[in-house]
Amino acid sequence: MINVKVPATSANLGPGFDTLGLALSLYNRFSFIETSEGLEINGCKNYHANENNLVYTSMLKTFDIIGYRPRGIRIEADTDIPISRGLGSSATCILGGVIGANKLANSPLSKDEILEIATGIEGHPDNIAPALFGGLVASVVDNNKIYYNKINIANGIKFVALIPDFTLSTSSAREVLPKNISYEDGVYNVGRVALLLSAFSNGRFDLLKTSLEDRLHQPYRGKLIFGFDDIIDKCYNLGCLGAYISGAGPTLMAIVYKVDGDFKVKIKEYLNSNNYNWDVKELYLDFNGAIEY
Amino acid sequence: MINVKVPATSANLGPGFDTLGLALSLYNRFSFIETSEGLEINGCKNYHANENNLVYTSMLKTFDIIGYRPRGIRIEADTDIPISRGLGSSATCILGGVIGANKLANSPLSKDEILEIATGIEGHPDNIAPALFGGLVASVVDNNKIYYNKINIANGIKFVALIPDFTLSTSSAREVLPKNISYEDGVYNVGRVALLLSAFSNGRFDLLKTSLEDRLHQPYRGKLIFGFDDIIDKCYNLGCLGAYISGAGPTLMAIVYKVDGDFKVKIKEYLNSNNYNWDVKELYLDFNGAIEY
Repeated sequence: MINVKVPATSANLGPGFDTLGLALSLYNRFSFIETSEGLEINGCKNYHANENNLVYTSMLKTFDIIGYRPRGIRIEADTDIPISRGLGSSATCILGGVIGANKLANSPLSKDEILEIATGIEGHPDNIAPALFGGLVASVVDNNKIYYNKINIANGIKFVALIPDFTLSTSSAREVLPKNISYEDGVYNVGRVALLLSAFSNGRFDLLKTSLEDRLHQPYRGKLIFGFDDIIDKCYNLGCLGAYISGAGPTLMAIVYKVDGDFKVKIKEYLNSNNYNWDVKELYLDFNGAIEY
Repeated sequence: MINVKVPATSANLGPGFDTLGLALSLYNRFSFIETSEGLEINGCKNYHANENNLVYTSMLKTFDIIGYRPRGIRIEADTDIPISRGLGSSATCILGGVIGANKLANSPLSKDEILEIATGIEGHPDNIAPALFGGLVASVVDNNKIYYNKINIANGIKFVALIPDFTLSTSSAREVLPKNISYEDGVYNVGRVALLLSAFSNGRFDLLKTSLEDRLHQPYRGKLIFGFDDIIDKCYNLGCLGAYISGAGPTLMAIVYKVDGDFKVKIKEYLNSNNYNWDVKELYLDFNGAIEY
C-alpha cells in the first residue's frame, strides 16, 4: 500500500496574486493499492466516488504520461481539508493522484516532473508548488515552463483560518476580476509583495499589515464573501499581524504570533455571537510538503 | 569638518518598479564646514555651484525642520557617480545635504527621520532607502508613511554598469509610462518580483533572467535608450545572469558571477566596436549605505 500525505495551502497572500503560496499543517491523506481490476474509492462523498474523482483522473493522466497500465485501483481518502474554501483541497487531490500513480509505476518521475504534471492538471502552480515542496514558495509560468523557489519565513507566527460555511468556486472568484487596472494599482501590488517577502524572510512581522494590502483581487473578491470587511476589521482589532483572503476565498486567514493564545478564542466568540457559523482552525507552517509515509 | 560618503544606487531592478533598490560601490563624497558667512561650493560644475545646488537646498530644508541657522556654509563635493544616468546621483546629493545639515546641528535626527526628510525632497524612497541603509531594500509609501525593509542577497554576484554617453531625465522617463495596464501585466510583474527576491535571497542566480522580466516600465523606457534591445541581447549572449534598466535609465545593469573576469572586457569590446561610446564599470554591493568618515 502506498500512503501519501499532502498539506493544505494558502495562496495569493494579499498582494502575491497567482504567485505566492504556503503549506499549512492540515492534511489530506491518500492510500493506493493496485487491485486485480476496476476502481474502488473509499473515504469520500458518494458523488465523488466514481471515475471523475480528481485523485483518480490525476492518476490516469500520470499513467498516460509514464506509460503504465495498472490492472485495477483502490483509493482510500482521509481528508481534513474542506472543499472549495481556498485551502488548496484540489491541489492535494491532484498531487495525491500524481504521486500515487508515480509510486505504483516504480517512481520514474522526478519531483520537478511531478510539479509539471500536477500544474498541468490544476492550471497554475501557486497551490501545487507549496503543497509539493512545503514552506512559502513563489512560482511563475513562463513559456509553459514553471519557475519556482522557496522563500524563508522567520519563526514566530501561526495562521488562524476562518473558514465560512459556504463555498466559493475558483471560477466564480476569477469572473469578478477586471481585464484592466490602473498603472498605480499594478505598482501598488509590486511594492506590497516585495515588502511582504522581506517581512517574512527577516521576521519584521510588524510590516505584515501594510504589506498584505492588495489591489488586484481582494477588493473584488471581498464582495463575494459575506462579512468580509467586518471580520477583517475585527481580526485587526483583536491584534492579528495581518489578514488576507486565502486563495480564491472564501476562507480568511489571520496571521498571529505563535505565542498568542487569545486570538483564536476571541475571533471564534465574535463569529458565533454575530451568527457567522464559521469554523476556526489554528494552523502552523508545514515545511515538508507532500510526503509518502 | 564633516565628511559624508553616499553610495550610488540602482533602483527598480526589472519588475520591482518604484519599490526595489540596491546600493553599489561607487560613491559621492561631501564635506561640510560652517563658515562665518555666505555659501561656497567646490568640486562641481560652475552652473551647480550656487544656491540652487541640490546638496545645499537639501541642507536648507533640513535646517528649517530642525530649527538650526548656520552662519555660512562651505560644501566640498567629490563625485564619482555620473548625473542623470539612473544611478541615484540626486539621492546622494539629497542625503549628503540632509546628513551634513543634521551633523552640523549636532545630530538631532534619527536615521528614520533622515529617510523621511530625504524622501520628501526626492519624492520617493526607492533610491534614498538603499543609499542610506545599504544593501537591497524594498520600500513603499502608504498614507505618507515610508515602510522599508532590507532583503538578503546571497554572496557571489557583481554588477556591471553600462553607462551611456547621453542622459535621460527621470521626468522624461516617467512621461512614457501608461495610465492603465492589462490585468495580466500587473500579475506578471507581481510574480516576477516575488521570484526575484527569492532568487537573490537564497542565491538561485539561475532564476535572475526570468525574474528580471518586466512589463511595467522597461518596454516603454527601452525605446528611449538607443541600442537597448541589441545590448541586452549581447549581455545575455556573453553569459550575464540578468540585465535591467537601472532606475529610470539610461544605464543598463548586467549581473554576473563575481568570478566572471570576461564579461566586462567583452561587453566593452562589443560597445566600442559598435560605436557605443559608453562607460563600463564593475561594481559590488555596498552593505553600509551612507556613512560619516
